[in-house]
Amino acid sequence: MSMNHTVRSYDRELNYLEKKVIEMGSHAERMIECSITSIVCGDLQLATTVIADDLFLDKAERDINEKAITIICKRQPMAVDLREIVGAIRISSDLERIGDMAKNIAKRTVAIAETRQPKTFYCGLETITALAQNQLKEVLGAYTSRLLDRVDAVRERDGKIDALYTSLFRELLTYMMEDMRNITVCTHLLFCIKNIERIGDHVTNIAETLHYIITGYHMSSDRPRDDLTYKVGIDEKK
Amino acid sequence: MSMNHTVRSYDRELNYLEKKVIEMGSHAERMIECSITSIVCGDLQLATTVIADDLFLDKAERDINEKAITIICKRQPMAVDLREIVGAIRISSDLERIGDMAKNIAKRTVAIAETRQPKTFYCGLETITALAQNQLKEVLGAYTSRLLDRVDAVRERDGKIDALYTSLFRELLTYMMEDMRNITVCTHLLFCIKNIERIGDHVTNIAETLHYIITGYHMSSDRPRDDLTYKVGIDEKK
Repeated sequence: MSMNHTVRSYDRELNYLEKKVIEMGSHAERMIECSITSIVCGDLQLATTVIADDLFLDKAERDINEKAITIICKRQPMAVDLREIVGAIRISSDLERIGDMAKNIAKRTVAIAETRQPKTFYCGLETITALAQNQLKEVLGAYTSRLLDRVDAVRERDGKIDALYTSLFRELLTYMMEDMRNITVCTHLLFCIKNIERIGDHVTNIAETLHYIITGYHMSSDRPRDDLTYKVGIDEKK
Repeated sequence: MSMNHTVRSYDRELNYLEKKVIEMGSHAERMIECSITSIVCGDLQLATTVIADDLFLDKAERDINEKAITIICKRQPMAVDLREIVGAIRISSDLERIGDMAKNIAKRTVAIAETRQPKTFYCGLETITALAQNQLKEVLGAYTSRLLDRVDAVRERDGKIDALYTSLFRELLTYMMEDMRNITVCTHLLFCIKNIERIGDHVTNIAETLHYIITGYHMSSDRPRDDLTYKVGIDEKK
């Protein structure tokens, strides 16, 4: 955030928003990490911590919203400043949703822990989570550095998460078909990987908001983001 | 929206936001209706229309956001006016997400249409959708009437959708276990009912925003909203 206003308290206000967004980002990163560990290790206590941790993001988002509106009313910002403030509102909303996804995953720990499955079942979830975590790390880095190339690259890479999601969706269906005792746990895992795929979408939203903050223009709408699993089931029939 | 400002163009601006939100609401209602019809009747053309229709909500949300920021900057609104404007931003975001859910459902038509199942498979989806549609209709009515009782009742009723969702989740798992040929279609139906359950959550968000607009206070956080299916699988083991 470039700051050189004659009123120094204005700079401090903008700074506060930026700091709060970065804080939310780190918190969301930790929540994702812990939610996956809780699922993979069947750690119920860790799952409970993740669920409780979500409150921080809810509160931080509300705080950013209120602060942003106050700044807009008081300062009547223009151009890049206004984009920064509106951008902080949008990004905080996506980070709050990312926290919700991590919470959803942690909640399934209790069901999955009861019916432990071989390590193989969790490999896919760990791989797709690593991709999403890397994307989140990149976009948070780009929020600090404001490098447009880095922002646009994040958006481009979301397709990889979507592709992996589709392939894992098929894999989990196969486990279910092989042995009906896998159905319950694989259904929960399906929802977990769906949550990770959605984290990828929220990261892409953040990249698009950042592009808007930096350039003043919205990215073109030919967004390489989609859940393609809705086609699963068609080719099996043919 | 109560309007009696000395500057009449200010009234017009606030009116514009309200009209646009109501328009988004009607559009979202139609999208839900059509998405379920497309799934139940295997109507691919209708599904395509729903998917294309989503663009309207995306555009309307962006329009409301931009207009709202312009009004805030120009008028520096206070108290109820500010809550109205910020409320319009929040409600439009929830309506846009409801449109996304309907689009997600419509997208699964193509997979489900290929493997037609007995009518029974779709009954639960139709029932839970009717509940969610009724909730959306009520909250949109409350947006126009500003009756607090009506708003609070919407939030209270969300628990019914969650309870039905949990029961349908179990039902679909049972179909899968009975015959592995049901696995693919039931997995898609699981995601459909999950989308409806999330529509219920967005309606609850709208009710909470409305409560804030009317009273100036946030509702208490003991929100009767939750996806309880994460426990499915535990009692089966015992």
